[in-house]
Amino acid sequence: MRLGMVGLGRMGGNLVRRLARAGIGAVVWDRDPAAVAALAAEGAEGASGLADLVRRLEAPRTVWVMLPAGEATEAALAELAGLLAPGDVAIDGGNGMWKDAIRRAAMLRAKGIDFLDIGTSGGVWGLARGYCLMIGGPEAQVARLDPVLAALAPGEGTAAPTPGRDPAGDPRPPRGYVHCGPNGAGHFTKMVHNAIEYGMMQAMAEGLELLQQAGSDRLPEDQRLDLPVPDITEAWRRGSVVASWLLDLTAQALAADGELSGYTGRVGDSGEGRWAVQAAIDSAVPAPVLSAALYARFRSRQDGPFADRALSAMRNAFGGHLEPR
Amino acid sequence: MRLGMVGLGRMGGNLVRRLARAGIGAVVWDRDPAAVAALAAEGAEGASGLADLVRRLEAPRTVWVMLPAGEATEAALAELAGLLAPGDVAIDGGNGMWKDAIRRAAMLRAKGIDFLDIGTSGGVWGLARGYCLMIGGPEAQVARLDPVLAALAPGEGTAAPTPGRDPAGDPRPPRGYVHCGPNGAGHFTKMVHNAIEYGMMQAMAEGLELLQQAGSDRLPEDQRLDLPVPDITEAWRRGSVVASWLLDLTAQALAADGELSGYTGRVGDSGEGRWAVQAAIDSAVPAPVLSAALYARFRSRQDGPFADRALSAMRNAFGGHLEPR
Amino acid sequence: MRLGMVGLGRMGGNLVRRLARAGIGAVVWDRDPAAVAALAAEGAEGASGLADLVRRLEAPRTVWVMLPAGEATEAALAELAGLLAPGDVAIDGGNGMWKDAIRRAAMLRAKGIDFLDIGTSGGVWGLARGYCLMIGGPEAQVARLDPVLAALAPGEGTAAPTPGRDPAGDPRPPRGYVHCGPNGAGHFTKMVHNAIEYGMMQAMAEGLELLQQAGSDRLPEDQRLDLPVPDITEAWRRGSVVASWLLDLTAQALAADGELSGYTGRVGDSGEGRWAVQAAIDSAVPAPVLSAALYARFRSRQDGPFADRALSAMRNAFGGHLEPR
Amino acid sequence: MRLGMVGLGRMGGNLVRRLARAGIGAVVWDRDPAAVAALAAEGAEGASGLADLVRRLEAPRTVWVMLPAGEATEAALAELAGLLAPGDVAIDGGNGMWKDAIRRAAMLRAKGIDFLDIGTSGGVWGLARGYCLMIGGPEAQVARLDPVLAALAPGEGTAAPTPGRDPAGDPRPPRGYVHCGPNGAGHFTKMVHNAIEYGMMQAMAEGLELLQQAGSDRLPEDQRLDLPVPDITEAWRRGSVVASWLLDLTAQALAADGELSGYTGRVGDSGEGRWAVQAAIDSAVPAPVLSAALYARFRSRQDGPFADRALSAMRNAFGGHLEPR
Repeated sequence: MRLGMVGLGRMGGNLVRRLARAGIGAVVWDRDPAAVAALAAEGAEGASGLADLVRRLEAPRTVWVMLPAGEATEAALAELAGLLAPGDVAIDGGNGMWKDAIRRAAMLRAKGIDFLDIGTSGGVWGLARGYCLMIGGPEAQVARLDPVLAALAPGEGTAAPTPGRDPAGDPRPPRGYVHCGPNGAGHFTKMVHNAIEYGMMQAMAEGLELLQQAGSDRLPEDQRLDLPVPDITEAWRRGSVVASWLLDLTAQALAADGELSGYTGRVGDSGEGRWAVQAAIDSAVPAPVLSAALYARFRSRQDGPFADRALSAMRNAFGGHLEPR
Repeated sequence: MRLGMVGLGRMGGNLVRRLARAGIGAVVWDRDPAAVAALAAEGAEGASGLADLVRRLEAPRTVWVMLPAGEATEAALAELAGLLAPGDVAIDGGNGMWKDAIRRAAMLRAKGIDFLDIGTSGGVWGLARGYCLMIGGPEAQVARLDPVLAALAPGEGTAAPTPGRDPAGDPRPPRGYVHCGPNGAGHFTKMVHNAIEYGMMQAMAEGLELLQQAGSDRLPEDQRLDLPVPDITEAWRRGSVVASWLLDLTAQALAADGELSGYTGRVGDSGEGRWAVQAAIDSAVPAPVLSAALYARFRSRQDGPFADRALSAMRNAFGGHLEPR
Repeated sequence: MRLGMVGLGRMGGNLVRRLARAGIGAVVWDRDPAAVAALAAEGAEGASGLADLVRRLEAPRTVWVMLPAGEATEAALAELAGLLAPGDVAIDGGNGMWKDAIRRAAMLRAKGIDFLDIGTSGGVWGLARGYCLMIGGPEAQVARLDPVLAALAPGEGTAAPTPGRDPAGDPRPPRGYVHCGPNGAGHFTKMVHNAIEYGMMQAMAEGLELLQQAGSDRLPEDQRLDLPVPDITEAWRRGSVVASWLLDLTAQALAADGELSGYTGRVGDSGEGRWAVQAAIDSAVPAPVLSAALYARFRSRQDGPFADRALSAMRNAFGGHLEPR
Repeated sequence: MRLGMVGLGRMGGNLVRRLARAGIGAVVWDRDPAAVAALAAEGAEGASGLADLVRRLEAPRTVWVMLPAGEATEAALAELAGLLAPGDVAIDGGNGMWKDAIRRAAMLRAKGIDFLDIGTSGGVWGLARGYCLMIGGPEAQVARLDPVLAALAPGEGTAAPTPGRDPAGDPRPPRGYVHCGPNGAGHFTKMVHNAIEYGMMQAMAEGLELLQQAGSDRLPEDQRLDLPVPDITEAWRRGSVVASWLLDLTAQALAADGELSGYTGRVGDSGEGRWAVQAAIDSAVPAPVLSAALYARFRSRQDGPFADRALSAMRNAFGGHLEPR
């Protein structure tokens, strides 16, 4: 079995490499020829374009698109709709909007082509650690691609068994991949996953700032504590309730620089955190933490926003208060 | 009837002036002799210190302390405890912590002196507009001081009658002052008042930023709107659900400078907003808006805080993401 | 000058009545014949349907649609697109989504018909108090309809002049109506208005609960305060920083029932608060208070939601904690 | 080496058992004789009271108090202050307030007795998994007790080494315990730990509700997804960014009952989450997620709170809106 991989960035290239380790080959393409050449040097088969990539694959074909969400993915899938044949499957492994997955599936389905939306978590560590896959689309294709999915996923031994889990249940989730339902379900689940990630990160970030500010000169002198933040995060990795992969990474970043002085604190965000808040609103689910985490990122990129100037103006207007400093 | 006023800043001086208009005299003191001289020039009787101020008043004496909350107020009340006599009353009209009011009342009560904690809202506009007074302490003193309180308050005609309000009810609230209960109740009520104020201000500030950013180039070009924010706030003052004094002041600030470019957006906060969140925690009352308003002010005074740097570090660690810009 | 009014509910009927007081007539229709008959009895001209309504108006026609946002409004405007003529104007005075306004304007514009999206604030009090109008669409039609808009708006005397406002500025905002920009701008502005309203309401609601719970038996006995909440809100109406129309209404509700025992606390929400959060996300504006206010309403309608059960399950899993009670 | 253990509940008993496995004995006491007898049956030495427990230990004595924070701990430490001798150490291993730790340390120090505040994370799993210990107090005692602390902690092998961590750094954090600083630092760190825990839990809970409600009939029919929530959490345990011990426990709870129908959703909270918000306020650190997590728990225990009834009353007052349902 082999598949086509479109997009050889941080994620796509490593997916190909992890598959190769399991003996699964790939025909690869990227708009950057150097990226294609690099993978080809490692044994993948390079293609000169989407049409060429499709031509090199045996039916039923599998083409995994691993491009930035939005226009790049849209264009690739539209082109693939004209190149693939009934029985083939196109996969969007990026961070796409789940409603787009539903729409794209319908577009491809009209030509007899199947579609899978696969949320792919693991980042730069996935090559070594495996990718957690959240899959939406027809079960027949998910079943056909099981060797691919199993090869990409971390595998059962990477976490202890869950006590009480039904041994007759779906064997895939304990290996790190899950068929979430029809098209859209994979990207919806990934969207929620990322929103939880935002919230966990923000919880940790607020706590770290509390630790770091425990010695602040805003506090009465006899209540100041100078805490060894890197050591604390290291200790928390074992036995504590907050033990987590995010904590592992935080301890690692703090081991390298306890002040994190290499960062300005301008925090990026991708679409997933935003869509999750919209989903919360659509289903009338209160999501205060997921929203707060998103807003903290928005705020991190602002300087003296209008809202804050308006507060200062109001305080001045009713109380004659000047701005501090 | 006349009283002593300790502290002749933005608030204390105007309280004396408003009382004078009602024919109520004052003996005044401030650590700044120029402030005393200024009021004396307007007809008040200047004192050379707290002891002198007390000596000049007739029993039963009323001394209104209008100093910054904290040490200044604490020191003045401690000194007054040694100067006043049974039957006299000391008033803390500042933004004191309500638990301090309970403690101070007990301290004075042990010497037979009464105490009133009076939350005083009105800011720089109070001289013309009247002060809303929230009073804690013994009813006998509140009743004795009714002429003073009535003179400071805005008066019944400054708002339309509340339909359905019991005509036999307490006549004071419709005049703008209210006896909230025993000591502590006045400052507790003022604390809640200010927390609501923070929340209303933040609601307005967020809305204003939404209006101002409606033309942001972060939006698709065909969805950008260039809105006349000053005119909008002016129109909202009439007939809308958000009509309020804060809106009046906002419209005024925007009439002067639609960009509010004279402000940096570093927003101060006093103790009241903080104590209100603590009170919410003490009584297990969810207060998401009151807290969010407080945190927005904290955040407005930070640049690249540790929490945000930690988020950037985590994003880099798991996804190789660089900070935006 | 007269206009057509489609939809004679709480809002539409009173708009007609307020116009009549200014000598502006209306041809009216509603799917409920009784509503038409009631207005006709007051002097309006009843129509038997949209086509009949349009037929009875003189060109250039003005048809104000005052229906629930969504399907009802969509259907009426679609039908009007086939009935009106170039030069006529259709108005959506409801709480429509601002992007729908842009779309509908384009749909009507293709037939030469103008469109105005007019956010209308004032509720059940608008008849007496006037309506605050936020208008999007072509200035020529806004100018032509000035007598209608001026008649509906509260008028200049209903609030004190804003000090410093340029006397040569647009005269309409001080009368309570504002031309916000092209189509979409009116409903966008109304959306933000309502979001601010949500935030102000929630700020007040949290504060009121703090007051009401100040005597809670969760507090140490010597720190409990039994506060006269209705009297406090009455006093705040005069001279305080939180004075506002919402406070007037709150004081009124508490004058009728200090415990608000006639309410269960299930709080409804319309689309506007939701769209505002989406707009905040679209333009990357932090809106913690506007969101918190929305989520409080979502939460008010839930009983034992999955999120809370999940928290209990986690606490039990790591700490053996049972649920309280 | 052996120590005294006061309080043999869920935590204290297992601490003794884990120490026994490392060959460290204990003299134990609890107000419940059955608890003492149970531990004695496993090899511990039972005491009949605090005085007896102290008498049975060899100097320098170590007495670990593992009681509910508040009065029980206060009383035990006060009694120990009269029983222990200079050179001895008393430990508070409970969830005490960090300012209490500073005060208690001073109280004991005045008698020459040392004090350690040790935040102890691990819950019902600590016996098998080890306890993460966050320690405040004099380094000499921490060093002396190293065998005890090392025996309780999980040990280095329970997590992978942190890349880049200085091999010459403090060897204790990689084993799962950390000396955070002088008295107060241990409980302060535990307080922040628990606040992060609250935030992570709430992030996860909100995400789970989003998944569970993805099929809600509040959504348009063609956008509903019926997601296998237990399988999703199982898959996330491997390779995903949200992998964490809390997720392990969540997957376990969902494996047992995918609907979590055994829980009502009333969520308890202890002091730590509350104190953390107070600490955030004291040091002016924005903590929106930590607060939101706390408020969600408060709200989970309310039915129709005053705040929500006030919102309904306001909506009715300005718009004539009735409560939904």
